[in-house]
Amino acid sequence: MGAVSGPPAAPLSDLSTLSLNQITINRWSLPEALAGCRRHGVGWIGLWREKVAECGLERAAALVRESGLRVSSLCRGGFFPAATAAERRARRDDNRRAVDEAVALGTDLLVLVCGPPAGTDLETARRQVVEGIEELAPYAAAAGVRLGIEPLHPMFAADRSVIVTLAQANDIALRFPAERVGVVIDAYHVWWDPEVYAQIRRAAGRILGFHVSDWIVPLPDPLLGRGLMGDGVIAFRRLRAAVEAAGYRGPIEVEIFNRALWDLPPDEAMAAVRARFLAHV
Amino acid sequence: MGAVSGPPAAPLSDLSTLSLNQITINRWSLPEALAGCRRHGVGWIGLWREKVAECGLERAAALVRESGLRVSSLCRGGFFPAATAAERRARRDDNRRAVDEAVALGTDLLVLVCGPPAGTDLETARRQVVEGIEELAPYAAAAGVRLGIEPLHPMFAADRSVIVTLAQANDIALRFPAERVGVVIDAYHVWWDPEVYAQIRRAAGRILGFHVSDWIVPLPDPLLGRGLMGDGVIAFRRLRAAVEAAGYRGPIEVEIFNRALWDLPPDEAMAAVRARFLAHV
Repeated sequence: MGAVSGPPAAPLSDLSTLSLNQITINRWSLPEALAGCRRHGVGWIGLWREKVAECGLERAAALVRESGLRVSSLCRGGFFPAATAAERRARRDDNRRAVDEAVALGTDLLVLVCGPPAGTDLETARRQVVEGIEELAPYAAAAGVRLGIEPLHPMFAADRSVIVTLAQANDIALRFPAERVGVVIDAYHVWWDPEVYAQIRRAAGRILGFHVSDWIVPLPDPLLGRGLMGDGVIAFRRLRAAVEAAGYRGPIEVEIFNRALWDLPPDEAMAAVRARFLAHV
Repeated sequence: MGAVSGPPAAPLSDLSTLSLNQITINRWSLPEALAGCRRHGVGWIGLWREKVAECGLERAAALVRESGLRVSSLCRGGFFPAATAAERRARRDDNRRAVDEAVALGTDLLVLVCGPPAGTDLETARRQVVEGIEELAPYAAAAGVRLGIEPLHPMFAADRSVIVTLAQANDIALRFPAERVGVVIDAYHVWWDPEVYAQIRRAAGRILGFHVSDWIVPLPDPLLGRGLMGDGVIAFRRLRAAVEAAGYRGPIEVEIFNRALWDLPPDEAMAAVRARFLAHV
């Protein structure tokens, strides 16, 4: 977390695309995050279901409307693989609730973190992901919510997502109409992939989100060691150009799981996010 | 490092394929490792250049010959990308020395860890890897040493190897005659890959080594958190069957970077390695 105060900010040419993913300022409640975004001139927010639940869905939806902020996505549905049919039904029901919550909160994008193998092997789990999305897609389409499959870094294959490459996410998304199922590209999860640029081109027309955080060397911690943009090695501008060349015109979520950032005074963290976004993304 | 004493050993049907990669019992010097392998009925050893250097190359070579052990590989050449031409020349010279050491130690396999991007981007670094192998291959071939490209897990892309999938390693190896350049498949580095079985089939005839250690959940530490086989989630027997179906008949190196294992009394660690190998690989 070297220079959290950040380099001198570049001209505010495209702060308009910045979306604060709520997890980045983890200490803020939903009302605090909405107020913080307004205070810092950020017009988009990515919401987490847990934080919405803390606030209460109805009140959260009302606060979002009053704030004037736009909701870039709701995190997260998914976690499809499960050991028993009963558990898979419970996941299905929870995913439908997530769709309903997205509608209530005024976003048309539900991010899918597909889940780890649950008492089964990778191939079975990967089939269960496809089945789970097949089952959820009509429900989401009827609600006007798009499903964004987010591949996670391969180091999360055992405990968070059996979908670990953009190629896999594309393979699944391409089974569906482009207006129903697409992909969410998080720089931290895909930067290493020799196929990333080819797969971004392949995803043209169905990129539903673009997330940024940096890969610090050496990796401080797989889960809580993501860096502010500029603290690591990721070539954000090249990835962003590729995503835009593939037709993406939406907001860019800054999503950083980082203990040191979480421990900062939130307004200081928010200023750093803004400055780093402008300087590096 | 839960049950280091291990489950009851299965019949010793294939202890004959077990090779101890020296790093697994890091406290042992080369002479101690040779004696330890003999004491535990292990007929193969994978050597590290650092430990050979501590002992002195000539003495190491003599001790290996006296021990009767066979050397499955020498770790490691590679680290091709470099920021300057002078550095690249220094790497080339060092890699040639590694080939010479392999010959002196009686192994025909030099494992290549290809190296991180060094002051450059991933694509340039990947080109430098190909150029480095092209330059080294004739020298190695003249010495009767095969080069084994080992893809590392994508979480090492920034600091150890820009070659992070078996597909990439195959792409490079297939530029060369099969008797000169092949791949080394380490279960820890490849188990997550949706393409792993297809790429193992593609590597048929040029798989030069097979390494095992387990992926613990949650990952304790990227570098020093590899597990003993059975402590994690990797399906070793399926990977082994695939590697054998692709024609591999050589030794299987147990290569574990694990602080807790290193802290055990070496003979206890060695007994655990043997037992876990028989029970899980």
